[in-house]
Amino acid sequence: MNDEAGGRRHWYVPDAYLPGDSSHGVESHESACLLNAGSRPAVVSLTFFFEDRDPVGPVEVTVESRRTRHVRLTDPAQLSGVVLPRDVPFAYKAECDVPIVLQHSRLDTSAGAYTLGTTIAYGE
Amino acid sequence: MNDEAGGRRHWYVPDAYLPGDSSHGVESHESACLLNAGSRPAVVSLTFFFEDRDPVGPVEVTVESRRTRHVRLTDPAQLSGVVLPRDVPFAYKAECDVPIVLQHSRLDTSAGAYTLGTTIAYGE
Amino acid sequence: MNDEAGGRRHWYVPDAYLPGDSSHGVESHESACLLNAGSRPAVVSLTFFFEDRDPVGPVEVTVESRRTRHVRLTDPAQLSGVVLPRDVPFAYKAECDVPIVLQHSRLDTSAGAYTLGTTIAYGE
Amino acid sequence: MNDEAGGRRHWYVPDAYLPGDSSHGVESHESACLLNAGSRPAVVSLTFFFEDRDPVGPVEVTVESRRTRHVRLTDPAQLSGVVLPRDVPFAYKAECDVPIVLQHSRLDTSAGAYTLGTTIAYGE
Repeated sequence: MNDEAGGRRHWYVPDAYLPGDSSHGVESHESACLLNAGSRPAVVSLTFFFEDRDPVGPVEVTVESRRTRHVRLTDPAQLSGVVLPRDVPFAYKAECDVPIVLQHSRLDTSAGAYTLGTTIAYGE
Repeated sequence: MNDEAGGRRHWYVPDAYLPGDSSHGVESHESACLLNAGSRPAVVSLTFFFEDRDPVGPVEVTVESRRTRHVRLTDPAQLSGVVLPRDVPFAYKAECDVPIVLQHSRLDTSAGAYTLGTTIAYGE
Repeated sequence: MNDEAGGRRHWYVPDAYLPGDSSHGVESHESACLLNAGSRPAVVSLTFFFEDRDPVGPVEVTVESRRTRHVRLTDPAQLSGVVLPRDVPFAYKAECDVPIVLQHSRLDTSAGAYTLGTTIAYGE
Repeated sequence: MNDEAGGRRHWYVPDAYLPGDSSHGVESHESACLLNAGSRPAVVSLTFFFEDRDPVGPVEVTVESRRTRHVRLTDPAQLSGVVLPRDVPFAYKAECDVPIVLQHSRLDTSAGAYTLGTTIAYGE
């Protein structure tokens, strides 16, 4: 196995937002999509930032070696029970003990159709 | 507190555009989403560039430490009173005294449905 | 010819997903869009990662010099016969013998309209 | 004036595509959005790459100092008369004599609604 997996240990997503409405039987949601291409498990600490209150976290998420994990930010079960508010602008950072890659995506079904936005986060 | 927050001090967004029409009772808009994960307040200077006229700004925006701020570009109250034109291509840069991260997003509701675009800006 | 083409040799896409439904006669799909701006052919090895099973690949794809190739991830014929599952979160990396650039895009037609998401992958 | 404007001189966009259909009286299109935040005019050379034919270009585009220009890839008048094909995957690079920033966007109106995709290009 090759330990020289690519990635960064610090990732930042300034535009997080969980729309309050949904349609089509598909919940509006965001996912923090993590790729651990390396041979060691990754422990990822997520911290959530808001406009007018103190940060929440860190929340720990594990990604096994050579696995991806799409962490759904609307699911408290994936966030150690943390409930992120809907209809509120927020942001988050991810810190990891090994290099990973983070891509952030939103699927907004609130207007009766799907709209998707995605970007590789800012990593360093 | 840890001052070694990640980010860059110069960010660039070449594709800004505020659609003139809206629907669903949701205004078409763009947001400059700023994350200041560090322990010092951030003073961000925004300069707006156009195709056929001189730049506007700098407009100062403050982001407290360990906070995010999603600056809505359609809201003059968030831009020291500056009114950005609709239906006109523009661009902007952000300069900051401390490292931050900038993600730019557009929600276009002009066609009777939502469509979302987002990207981490170019930082250095 | 100039061999100093730009790009990176390692690219990562954490958020891949092939929606199971489609509409408008247009299949929901994702594409790994490769640009080889250089003067030598590129051999690209794609490895696909999942949440709960071992990776699949590498799958080899060739991009001739000074050509692009938009590899459709729903088409086994473009992936040496590999069938990627629908409605399952996955991720992938691309490794190449020469510098290339990778942009990942999804067109989701499952909700009766199109929605598009795109990002330059993370490269190093 | 400050010549130390940010940016890069080489930019790459692997996923370009001009949908053949449109709706809402709005043409499906893509734009290469250029920001020249510096004090010198920028001469940008665009080269277009295809899957099965030789590249087209370079096509020269000028961006005055402290200006943006959103070059619409469906408009031959903005590309020295070059007509880019619709419904064909392509890609492009931009080379510039001074640092600029390039963001690529597509607005696809072919399915009776708008969908938008955008990303900062890969720069070096």
